Amino acid sequence: MTEFSIGVDLGGTNLRAAAIDRAGKMIAKVSRTTVLTKGPDSVVGDIVAGIRAVQRSVKGHKLVGVGIGSAGFMDMQKGVIRGSPNLPIFEDYPIRDEISRRLGLPVILENDANAAALGEKWMGAGKNYDDLVLLTLGTGIGGGIIVHGRILHGFVGMAAEVGHITVDPSGNPCGCGNNGCLEKHASATAVVCMAKLMGLGEVSAEDVFHLAEQGDEKAHVVWRHMGKHLGVGLAALANIFNCPLYLLSGGLLPAWDYFTPAMFEELKRRSFIFRSTPSRVEKAVLGSEAGLYGAAYLPLQEQA
Amino acid sequence: MTEFSIGVDLGGTNLRAAAIDRAGKMIAKVSRTTVLTKGPDSVVGDIVAGIRAVQRSVKGHKLVGVGIGSAGFMDMQKGVIRGSPNLPIFEDYPIRDEISRRLGLPVILENDANAAALGEKWMGAGKNYDDLVLLTLGTGIGGGIIVHGRILHGFVGMAAEVGHITVDPSGNPCGCGNNGCLEKHASATAVVCMAKLMGLGEVSAEDVFHLAEQGDEKAHVVWRHMGKHLGVGLAALANIFNCPLYLLSGGLLPAWDYFTPAMFEELKRRSFIFRSTPSRVEKAVLGSEAGLYGAAYLPLQEQA
Repeated sequence: MTEFSIGVDLGGTNLRAAAIDRAGKMIAKVSRTTVLTKGPDSVVGDIVAGIRAVQRSVKGHKLVGVGIGSAGFMDMQKGVIRGSPNLPIFEDYPIRDEISRRLGLPVILENDANAAALGEKWMGAGKNYDDLVLLTLGTGIGGGIIVHGRILHGFVGMAAEVGHITVDPSGNPCGCGNNGCLEKHASATAVVCMAKLMGLGEVSAEDVFHLAEQGDEKAHVVWRHMGKHLGVGLAALANIFNCPLYLLSGGLLPAWDYFTPAMFEELKRRSFIFRSTPSRVEKAVLGSEAGLYGAAYLPLQEQA
Repeated sequence: MTEFSIGVDLGGTNLRAAAIDRAGKMIAKVSRTTVLTKGPDSVVGDIVAGIRAVQRSVKGHKLVGVGIGSAGFMDMQKGVIRGSPNLPIFEDYPIRDEISRRLGLPVILENDANAAALGEKWMGAGKNYDDLVLLTLGTGIGGGIIVHGRILHGFVGMAAEVGHITVDPSGNPCGCGNNGCLEKHASATAVVCMAKLMGLGEVSAEDVFHLAEQGDEKAHVVWRHMGKHLGVGLAALANIFNCPLYLLSGGLLPAWDYFTPAMFEELKRRSFIFRSTPSRVEKAVLGSEAGLYGAAYLPLQEQA
């Protein structure tokens, strides 16, 4: 009897569930829309229905448990989302216990970026590593850190807020109360703002990528600045963790060739630890599936 | 029969060894001078003699092993000091294996700041915590990080180089190749330089402390600047680790009252993780004994 687990990726607009076996093979997957206006009880009903749908397709096998990767700050002990701009209806709602009660199954709740880091460690670019840091370069910058093969949680599960590391003490203001946060200088939002400041008008990060491809010097300046700040943040992580592997994922990855030269230059200069050990920065490979794999791996890892 | 272990603290000028039992009671201790000019083989002889001296005083009990905390960057797997300004004679010398061979006992080699963090976790200010970060504020700034009760080593044992986190991308130059390293803005050396720049002349960090006590406004400016930069570095650590406890130790501790107001202001502003969880920054309590306790705990922890 094959052991399998169900991973759920819960976002502000989409809800996905997948059944994955212990060997890492995805056996079934469903995608649904998250209709937050219906309220938490109803969305939990959708989550449970999604889980049951993939559960049916692996009937006869042993289900180890359910892992949920969700946007937001988690209180791991309580299984509660303490704050989430994308899922405000779940703030302080007992989401883990309610899903567990309705399913009659053990459920592990995890931050989505942490789950993605674990997914890459299990079945992705970090397969051969027990220690890695994943940065997701999107609208903001999220992160997940794996130490000794397991997610670094910190005190209440709020570790790895790498997007809010100060990379410039006099830099751009951030909603978190700080200024100069990494994500205010190296996220897609930051790229859009820098492009505007450079006179490129109202463009998307993707536009800035295409402009760079076409040889636009202003777009290149934007990517170099973004890469430089990303390098400062990565250098802090390298000095702290001395990891063999740092992974980048998210919507800005296509611009890799344009931001990584400045990133590596800054990283190498600001971290002799990085320079003097064979550490690498690479692209994550699982894309949006990373969170599903990681969520599914949570119960499997608990019962390894 | 009581189980005990021997911890060694190996510095550029002093060598100490202590026998400590599993309950954390120090049974015997010796201190010697490290005469580096005699060469590595001879200093290893002194280390072995120191260990044998404390070993004799616990005859009849079970010796679990020997832990050595040493200044410098370690290659943990090889048991070699890869680089150490204070112990240049041991660079790439097989120190762990040579001591182990002469003693006929298992030896664990560890960085001294890591050992100090583990010591504070075992018998000091971090007794009730499984996760903590220790910063040693001395000539430079060292660090040790405990995750899940164990030292965070990273890839080759060079993790926790917190003194080289960039706290100001346009800050003071550092011998590591970076500029704006935490230790160039918040160590005793940095305090001395800032005092000079403020027109206080050739004074020691202790002098700057006494000047602050006497109400000297320039000295207060120095401590505020030092505290501010320390706060930037701590905020990065808090955003990454979400630890319950951050410990400060070292020669600058007496100036706590003068640098911590600016430190806390900066830390709270730059880390919503710190603000929104009951995390604390406190003084370490074991002083220079921390490294001895931590070194002794290494073999005990291995065989727990």
